[in-house]
Amino acid sequence: MRAEKWKELKEYIEELKTIRVEPVTPKGFISTTGAYYYLNNGERIYRERIEKNHQDGSAAVVMPITENGECILSVEPRVHTKATVGIGFPAGYMEEGEHYFDTARRELMEETGYQASHLQYLTEFYQDEGCSAAYNYGVLATGCRKCGDQKLDRDEFVRYFTCYLDEVEELFHKKYILGSNSQLIYEKAKQYIK
Amino acid sequence: MRAEKWKELKEYIEELKTIRVEPVTPKGFISTTGAYYYLNNGERIYRERIEKNHQDGSAAVVMPITENGECILSVEPRVHTKATVGIGFPAGYMEEGEHYFDTARRELMEETGYQASHLQYLTEFYQDEGCSAAYNYGVLATGCRKCGDQKLDRDEFVRYFTCYLDEVEELFHKKYILGSNSQLIYEKAKQYIK
Repeated sequence: MRAEKWKELKEYIEELKTIRVEPVTPKGFISTTGAYYYLNNGERIYRERIEKNHQDGSAAVVMPITENGECILSVEPRVHTKATVGIGFPAGYMEEGEHYFDTARRELMEETGYQASHLQYLTEFYQDEGCSAAYNYGVLATGCRKCGDQKLDRDEFVRYFTCYLDEVEELFHKKYILGSNSQLIYEKAKQYIK
Repeated sequence: MRAEKWKELKEYIEELKTIRVEPVTPKGFISTTGAYYYLNNGERIYRERIEKNHQDGSAAVVMPITENGECILSVEPRVHTKATVGIGFPAGYMEEGEHYFDTARRELMEETGYQASHLQYLTEFYQDEGCSAAYNYGVLATGCRKCGDQKLDRDEFVRYFTCYLDEVEELFHKKYILGSNSQLIYEKAKQYIK
């Protein structure tokens, strides 16, 4: 990666890292339900299910490519990871009844201020099949053009970062991009971007 | 896929599907902690964290190939999915301090009774970066040979299923394999199995 790009990325990581943690009583964003499930073979099993904000937590994940062929990555606090900051593709929860292309457009706009000229379906998958009904979609967004400002929630701090595709490859290779969503949709996008 | 293989697979799906659900108070397999995280830029954010059985929930996922080149898939209840039954690669939680190759060997043996002659690292990734510290490993297991019986927990019902690699491809294509772990490690394994 170009030296000035490493510098930019490391500044974002430094800015967003966690320096202190204060445990508090959970506010109920994540909730759990439990049930016995009776199988067709006569057996009964017990399973629990995770919900986020009382919804499945289904999300759309977008790999955005700008008009001049650069990729856009988000840098944001990922407080449960070793680095406490994560790099990956923009993503966000789907609103009820929303098509994944609309989620993709909305989240890309909110996190980066970019708009795509073309969206390509990549894949769909359960995020954590055993414990959740979250069903995600991966989308490739091409021809992206900057056309506004970020629109972040009060509790959201996202820096975005553009770089060439070989630099994205380097970030994967050097384990800077460690989220399963980003890894999976990158693999699926390869057939379209190479 | 060969007709007799479709028949076998559909029998397992039929056997393991959920026919009735009885909600009960959660028993605490999944738990949530909450905290304020102070960032290096002076901001404070609130995040929750999922734990499973009071651990991170890190897992190893194994794509097993037998001596004669067939792939082994697990069929098991996935009660939160639309089908209520999932098809995918064997996987299981890592025990504390366990190397992912040992988890891979152990889970393959427990779920299928097969032992591998060679293990190949494929990738590592956070399962759900925003809400969990679960850090998974993907492993390709080749030269697998049947050498024992399944050893399942009381609450676990897993059928395994062998088929050719082009039949695995067909199962992905027809959306029978929908878990993110299986999708990701399959993409990563392609460089070794083609």
